[in-house]
Amino acid sequence: MIRLVSLTLAAAGAFLAFPAAAQFAKTEDAVQYRQSAMFLQNHHFGRIAAMANGRIPYDQAAAVADAEIVAVISQRPWIAYGPGTLGGNAKPEIWKEQAKFKEYGDKLMAETAKLLTAAKAGNLDALKTAVGSTGGTCKTCHDAFRKD
Amino acid sequence: MIRLVSLTLAAAGAFLAFPAAAQFAKTEDAVQYRQSAMFLQNHHFGRIAAMANGRIPYDQAAAVADAEIVAVISQRPWIAYGPGTLGGNAKPEIWKEQAKFKEYGDKLMAETAKLLTAAKAGNLDALKTAVGSTGGTCKTCHDAFRKD
Repeated sequence: MIRLVSLTLAAAGAFLAFPAAAQFAKTEDAVQYRQSAMFLQNHHFGRIAAMANGRIPYDQAAAVADAEIVAVISQRPWIAYGPGTLGGNAKPEIWKEQAKFKEYGDKLMAETAKLLTAAKAGNLDALKTAVGSTGGTCKTCHDAFRKD
Repeated sequence: MIRLVSLTLAAAGAFLAFPAAAQFAKTEDAVQYRQSAMFLQNHHFGRIAAMANGRIPYDQAAAVADAEIVAVISQRPWIAYGPGTLGGNAKPEIWKEQAKFKEYGDKLMAETAKLLTAAKAGNLDALKTAVGSTGGTCKTCHDAFRKD
């Protein structure tokens, strides 16, 4: 029996641990799941980026809370890209270039885990660096796989 | 300066730790945030409930992963009920009965923390109990504060 060794953040194995197709009865549910996850990610990552950029005051506790939800949700949207769930802003390339898509997903999970670590450390410079890396990871994947 | 003493799950203080009004520029963003959070909650809680009820096979690792996102997201939707954000399925009573709404929110955070504990313990009977309590908490709040 395969078990997840670690259920903590950045568990790269989580990427493959969910039987994607089984999770959603209808494609529109998978699409809504993806969009819901991305909306929350965007909101909370945006808060951290705003702190890093000085647009809102830096608050370590808030940054940690934001980073925690970003890191946890980053592990989940993959369940909603099962076969036959093309829709929303997803490009067909997601299903044609699965290795690349998974590579980018793994990268996101790794970067958001680092973001949480930086937030917990309470070092604003480290947080800025992590925000840059995480934002770059978002952009790389969106450029390849998201319709605009 | 007020700091969150604990940023772990079920931190009751989290309920009051976020300046609700400041988080969203537009009411529709707050509404979309709430709906996104609820959609993810419903999906992942539904998976755990399905395991508890035997509709899908019990898988401890999956139950923990589902319970983790439920517990983390349960701490967040409160930021999206700031003054003047009536919309979506929210009833006006949310803003008229703030003490009751907060009581229900605290209860949800406490119950979803117990759900995560039960999932981690790997005891299916404990998980069933926690699913019942959490589901009851959802229903109580929805009956009072959600339009149908």
